[in-house]
Amino acid sequence: MQKKIVEPVLKVIFLGGVGEIGKNMTALEFGEDIIIIDCGSTFPTADTPGVDLIIPDPAYLMLNKDKIRGIVVTHGHEDHIGAIPYFLKECNVPVFGTRLTLTLIENKLREMRIDNAKLNVVQAGNTVSLGRAFKVEFIKVSHSIAGSCALSISTPVGVVFHTGDFKVDFTPIDGNMIDLQRIAEIGKQGVLLLLCESTNVERPGSSMSEATVGRSMRAIFNENKDRRLIIATFASNIHRLQQIIDLAAEFKRKVAFSGRSMINVAESAAKIGELHLDREQIVDIEKVKNVDDKDLVILTTGSQGEPMSALTRMASDEFSKVKLGYNDTVILSAHPIPGNERMVYTVINNVYRHGARVIYESLAELHVSGHACRDELSLIHALLKPQYFIPVHGEHRHLQKHAELAVAMGEMPSHIIITDIGDCVYVSPRKFMIGEQVAAGSLLIDGLGVGDTDSSVLRDRKILAEEGLLLAVICIDELSGTVSAVDITSRGFAYDKDNGDFFEGCRGDVMRVLSDYDLRECDRNVLNNTIRKELKNYIFKKTRRSPMILPLVIDC
Amino acid sequence: MQKKIVEPVLKVIFLGGVGEIGKNMTALEFGEDIIIIDCGSTFPTADTPGVDLIIPDPAYLMLNKDKIRGIVVTHGHEDHIGAIPYFLKECNVPVFGTRLTLTLIENKLREMRIDNAKLNVVQAGNTVSLGRAFKVEFIKVSHSIAGSCALSISTPVGVVFHTGDFKVDFTPIDGNMIDLQRIAEIGKQGVLLLLCESTNVERPGSSMSEATVGRSMRAIFNENKDRRLIIATFASNIHRLQQIIDLAAEFKRKVAFSGRSMINVAESAAKIGELHLDREQIVDIEKVKNVDDKDLVILTTGSQGEPMSALTRMASDEFSKVKLGYNDTVILSAHPIPGNERMVYTVINNVYRHGARVIYESLAELHVSGHACRDELSLIHALLKPQYFIPVHGEHRHLQKHAELAVAMGEMPSHIIITDIGDCVYVSPRKFMIGEQVAAGSLLIDGLGVGDTDSSVLRDRKILAEEGLLLAVICIDELSGTVSAVDITSRGFAYDKDNGDFFEGCRGDVMRVLSDYDLRECDRNVLNNTIRKELKNYIFKKTRRSPMILPLVIDC
Repeated sequence: MQKKIVEPVLKVIFLGGVGEIGKNMTALEFGEDIIIIDCGSTFPTADTPGVDLIIPDPAYLMLNKDKIRGIVVTHGHEDHIGAIPYFLKECNVPVFGTRLTLTLIENKLREMRIDNAKLNVVQAGNTVSLGRAFKVEFIKVSHSIAGSCALSISTPVGVVFHTGDFKVDFTPIDGNMIDLQRIAEIGKQGVLLLLCESTNVERPGSSMSEATVGRSMRAIFNENKDRRLIIATFASNIHRLQQIIDLAAEFKRKVAFSGRSMINVAESAAKIGELHLDREQIVDIEKVKNVDDKDLVILTTGSQGEPMSALTRMASDEFSKVKLGYNDTVILSAHPIPGNERMVYTVINNVYRHGARVIYESLAELHVSGHACRDELSLIHALLKPQYFIPVHGEHRHLQKHAELAVAMGEMPSHIIITDIGDCVYVSPRKFMIGEQVAAGSLLIDGLGVGDTDSSVLRDRKILAEEGLLLAVICIDELSGTVSAVDITSRGFAYDKDNGDFFEGCRGDVMRVLSDYDLRECDRNVLNNTIRKELKNYIFKKTRRSPMILPLVIDC
Repeated sequence: MQKKIVEPVLKVIFLGGVGEIGKNMTALEFGEDIIIIDCGSTFPTADTPGVDLIIPDPAYLMLNKDKIRGIVVTHGHEDHIGAIPYFLKECNVPVFGTRLTLTLIENKLREMRIDNAKLNVVQAGNTVSLGRAFKVEFIKVSHSIAGSCALSISTPVGVVFHTGDFKVDFTPIDGNMIDLQRIAEIGKQGVLLLLCESTNVERPGSSMSEATVGRSMRAIFNENKDRRLIIATFASNIHRLQQIIDLAAEFKRKVAFSGRSMINVAESAAKIGELHLDREQIVDIEKVKNVDDKDLVILTTGSQGEPMSALTRMASDEFSKVKLGYNDTVILSAHPIPGNERMVYTVINNVYRHGARVIYESLAELHVSGHACRDELSLIHALLKPQYFIPVHGEHRHLQKHAELAVAMGEMPSHIIITDIGDCVYVSPRKFMIGEQVAAGSLLIDGLGVGDTDSSVLRDRKILAEEGLLLAVICIDELSGTVSAVDITSRGFAYDKDNGDFFEGCRGDVMRVLSDYDLRECDRNVLNNTIRKELKNYIFKKTRRSPMILPLVIDC
């Protein structure tokens, strides 16, 4: 009798991401070893009102704590690092990333008072061994934050290449190009599986170089020599900050940083030498009133119109340090992220009302994307020629289009899998399939609670938001079984004012229900439900609305 | 002694619009006459949860009912006609518009059971006299709905030209071009004031002709000969429907209409001859299961991902009449309106999950805008050469850019006014200034209530949505002044489950407050407020959340 040989497989597990698949957190598992790629958070949307932050559900990893050898981080954006403090609280494994990435993580850990994290700085070109199964090589790529890397991961079944977020910038600000030679070399040696980001797969051609933004900015500096310049951009885009700071120096303007994250990131990046600035050139935001308009650039947060950001507060005249006026030119060096358009345009409208100039068109080339467009994605496929391919970092439509791009380049449809969150893909030279599903998804963070805001809470909030609430408190005397009080109150419901008749009608309706029961004996749940149903019908008939109805029968 | 001569002025009053100025409703007033231009509604946004519809506040007009000579309607889009039934209920004045516009208004009136409206059909080229002051000429323009007109309004002080929504389409589907000759003639004779829409003032060049969409559609029909075609577009875009119906006839496909507004509009437009179709070609949506995929086109609502629309329900598998599958090609012939992107992309992702093809890129030229771009706006300014100019139909940023465009063409900055809702502009050959402010703004319609959902209700809803609610009912025995029950309940608040300790803590907190008072005597409002404040602090300390806290002290 022959023995059945069970071929060892690598498991690629997609644990996190809201909407976008394989973005916030992915794990590789082989035998007794697990490594985690990125550990990011997502900001809440209209579907999750009142939630502060969304992090990947670590349930599967918590069951396999002993196997985890570390977290390798591709770059320092929130959606790749934002969940690290929460994860380390549960499971304090080593973290590996480039200098800037770890500096940004350190800021987060400090805020959450975690001081025992094991942070390990790597440089592009370094390789880290994790457990017996994994060797991770960090490879320089370009992106909208400095210190971004792709990962080439050697495993017992072959090489897994993960691009992280990337673009190809032939004229990067720091002079360090994406390491295409090394990527080609890895491809030549053979790649088992490519995980490649898909954000811009709908855009033809190539992304523009960050350097083009500098050229547009220079024109603006030239055309606004007598005016104060206020420039909003992402704090983490160090190279953007660098270009603006350099231009300010050239035009003999001082620079002030405005907004908490702008100040934090600029200081951290300057400290580790990622951002080059002359201390003499910097002026505290508290003191900008003493600087002439023509001698000043304010770099501010708020390019997405975030409600509490510095620019939003300037625009609505709630920022005492900077008051907008006719001699200001406000520049938005960012595109609105889908979903943020309304907030951004509200800020622009408000800035205009102060008489200021606003420069924000995409035509003005004030922003370039940090993600590879179709030709750049094609280049990566051409250099790596992977045996298998899983498109990642995108909604379903992006992954689909990325798969089509790969097929058009000659990859086999059966060698491509479009995954979903919770999928565990088995990979070996002779196997490529979706295996079991694991516990995965999102945890919502709401104040101090992690994961206790669930879908029933969100459903309640949605009804409360759209329809409001009507409350009927019924006090029943336990002994006599008589009704001692019926109190109707409402909140967020349009009929609650100057409308005594309506409340009186509700009260009458409740009394009618109560008269059908022997109140000494009847089941309180039954009573509650009957009152809810009756009131629901009564209120809908009168108002065509369906507020949340909360009857409270209290025995006193 | 000389008499002071008071020059008569025309008042231009901006009454409606949410975000966009001068969109939903504008009034002209001269002496004893008022005419109203358009009377439209806006759909609610994230800022107005649970609201069904937003209409212009008619307060000013209600005070001047006797002066109103009629409503002139430029075209049949919701934001120009949606408030008419509400207005006519208060003030049943005559309404003037083209055939299709009035047909769409009639549908609305029928739904709201208004049968005494005075609707007057006009054709492009007609002139209507309204009161002693106004003569209104309807002038053919192109737009994304048939029957659109600009208005040239003769008044005692001069001609006011209102463009309505328009574009310049040199190859319109119905063969009737915008009447540039007549517009030029009016300009030559002299225009006192131009009111011109500003929607696309940020787009350079000219809008594309509706005919380009037909060419893209033809390519799709050719490339999908064996597949079922499902095309989502705006129901009101009759010319778009016409092109698709004509292509279907050519490719020997039957056409089914799906979604209430698609069915209504197609039927109404066919009845009045604005939409040409062969009855044989139409198949009821209930019967499409009997038609081969290759012989069918389904025209559906849902191009904006609206939650209850037919396409959205197909995508989430909740539409029994049409089940999506591998042999379907779904085409979105529309751009997402800003703010709708997330809903649209969710629908696209869900359609992909059924294995269907989806065609939606803007690159595919599946949609063209109905609004004039910069060169078209410039053409109107060049043909009319108005003495004064008020940019309308836009947010503040659009109006500002439109004013800059006019100045670049030689108009005088002092002859341009950027207005806001509620502004009343005085106009005569020698006067152009903002006069008094009038009552204007929005009324929110919520179920059967008009205008009773105010900002306090919306503020409550917002808190309820983001933080939820905690309720403390305290029953006090009136005679003895003892507490007979304390009941804590919550909704939409994350700490309400499996957390008896937390509720117990709240109850203890309430009891501590109560013990400080003589409950027979103390003021119930003071008691309520003290309990609210105490609980607020207690809960924030424990959870870092601030739910709405509703203490109810009940005497029984």
